Amino acid sequence: MFALDSRLQQDCLLIGDFPLCRLLLMNDANYPWFILVPRREEVSELFQLDAADQCQLWQETTLLAETLKDTFAADKMNVATLGNVVSQLHMHVIVRRRGDAAWPAPVWGRNPPRPYVEEQVRQLVSKLRLVLTENFEFSGELA
Amino acid sequence: MFALDSRLQQDCLLIGDFPLCRLLLMNDANYPWFILVPRREEVSELFQLDAADQCQLWQETTLLAETLKDTFAADKMNVATLGNVVSQLHMHVIVRRRGDAAWPAPVWGRNPPRPYVEEQVRQLVSKLRLVLTENFEFSGELA
Repeated sequence: MFALDSRLQQDCLLIGDFPLCRLLLMNDANYPWFILVPRREEVSELFQLDAADQCQLWQETTLLAETLKDTFAADKMNVATLGNVVSQLHMHVIVRRRGDAAWPAPVWGRNPPRPYVEEQVRQLVSKLRLVLTENFEFSGELA
Repeated sequence: MFALDSRLQQDCLLIGDFPLCRLLLMNDANYPWFILVPRREEVSELFQLDAADQCQLWQETTLLAETLKDTFAADKMNVATLGNVVSQLHMHVIVRRRGDAAWPAPVWGRNPPRPYVEEQVRQLVSKLRLVLTENFEFSGELA
């Protein structure tokens, strides 16, 4: 039974589900920062997923990155799975813009998170959910 | 015609070629830190590769991560494509160990690089090349 790691639950907002992954939004308005979590148990490394799930994770990651780049006018997408603190496998997909709060450094540990206000989240999620639901097998009834 | 970015060339040692990617070793003995560079021109984002190359990059990344985890007794593998400074698409595959120089933070910008001495590189590369050549379509005549 898949259960989202408690730290991810605390730091993120739920947006919805792709066929494999739960899509989260990091509650940090410094950057549009998304996280994909495969809904599988006890997996911390990419190669612990079976071959079909690996392929699906890659597809969801790549499609999300491409969609976010267009939707949020990114200068560069940052894609990473680290997991040194939260061991549950999760993939960061982060919109970077020249001049954002950490540019050009990676985002981790650079700036204190700036929690969203409710209206910001509503706008951001509704914009994104529309694009994802139109183009992919994405269900957004969670958030 | 593929040409390796000059900054990667300067900071890394060449190890060899997978079918798609050139394999580099970051010249920083703080961590076994590898970089895969797809031998394609003018690509900076994952989704700019065609579908077959995307699949191949994912396979090379995942196989390399799994091999490195065993070969170097990693506690966690860090896998990331950022590219905020070097725009040529490249995938970091980094062996992390509890207690390494940056643990548990990401490695970028944490510690000044510690260049390898020649004997260290020789040992590391010969160990790795043996494993890669036995298990994958890897050619190591470059370095």
